[in-house]
Amino acid sequence: MQYPEPISKLIDSYMKLPGIGAKSAARLAFYTIDMREDDVTDFAKALISAKRDLNYCSVCGNITEEDPCYICKDAGRDRGTILVVEDPKDVISIEKMREYRGLYHVLHGVLSPVEGTGPEDIQIPSLIRRLQSDEVKEVIIATNATAEGEATAMYLSRLIKPAGIKVTRLAHGLAVGSDIEYADEITLMKAVEGRREL
Amino acid sequence: MQYPEPISKLIDSYMKLPGIGAKSAARLAFYTIDMREDDVTDFAKALISAKRDLNYCSVCGNITEEDPCYICKDAGRDRGTILVVEDPKDVISIEKMREYRGLYHVLHGVLSPVEGTGPEDIQIPSLIRRLQSDEVKEVIIATNATAEGEATAMYLSRLIKPAGIKVTRLAHGLAVGSDIEYADEITLMKAVEGRREL
Repeated sequence: MQYPEPISKLIDSYMKLPGIGAKSAARLAFYTIDMREDDVTDFAKALISAKRDLNYCSVCGNITEEDPCYICKDAGRDRGTILVVEDPKDVISIEKMREYRGLYHVLHGVLSPVEGTGPEDIQIPSLIRRLQSDEVKEVIIATNATAEGEATAMYLSRLIKPAGIKVTRLAHGLAVGSDIEYADEITLMKAVEGRREL
Repeated sequence: MQYPEPISKLIDSYMKLPGIGAKSAARLAFYTIDMREDDVTDFAKALISAKRDLNYCSVCGNITEEDPCYICKDAGRDRGTILVVEDPKDVISIEKMREYRGLYHVLHGVLSPVEGTGPEDIQIPSLIRRLQSDEVKEVIIATNATAEGEATAMYLSRLIKPAGIKVTRLAHGLAVGSDIEYADEITLMKAVEGRREL
């Protein structure tokens, strides 16, 4: 006996999500059948709407309903600073801080020779085009502190600095509230390198 | 900044699934945006169809597109034996074995005084009604080997035996291919209790 067709199709769909295998997908599918009808309908609508109504901003690459996105359109933001991130989720994290008032640029990935991701495969050409306006004074590189994130930061820095634009990188060091005892060597090294006078 | 509305709605929907918290839901939602349009549409359709086209068999409680389900309708199956399971997924597991030719009864739960689940809250009354036909000769209780599963098995056994119907329980013991070294005490105890002459 196989699962009835509607449930096996739903299992297949759940299995296309990252980190969900056959057993979890079956569990989710059976759970779905017992969910409230409204919740299931809302879920289906949300899927369609997320795919249909969302796009990437043609200026910064952030996820948005309108193009350009509301950050790019906001006249109150500092147009002289662009913060470069790997992923739209990173924009949300930085916006939650409510401190940064500049613009963003979402790379949608990092350079990775191993995976064959070169500068043309991520949003580096569109960043360079944006920098050709006189307005941009500083590019803050906020790629992750992974090997690829660091390499991408280095690549961008070498590309942008000759144009006379200031390039900075987010500080790496000990997380606030963390114990030195549990910090890894590289984080500690970065913390020592980036020490500041009191 | 909050997420754009289509994505925050999708995150809310993903969070209604069991075992998916805020971070995983956000990750799945962003993943969905990058999925192929066809896959997302299929996913939405599968959700609606699983909820709309599937029902529980009015006889055995198994999940089905048609009522009664194809197992209950199958004239070739042994109508003298009913195997009682907690969950529709258990029916699939037993059918995969391709050995069992009797009928099923899905309880949709187990007795649990702690959670206030009594006999009327699960499909025990409908099981008793089925047993009132002369045909049933044996009830095989295949609830899980948890405290609640065992208590439910015991309860059913006391309820059914006086009617002169044979009541059996699936054997518990060492899994095939498992090491005695790693077996828990209760499994080992069951394996000793249920030992068979060679």
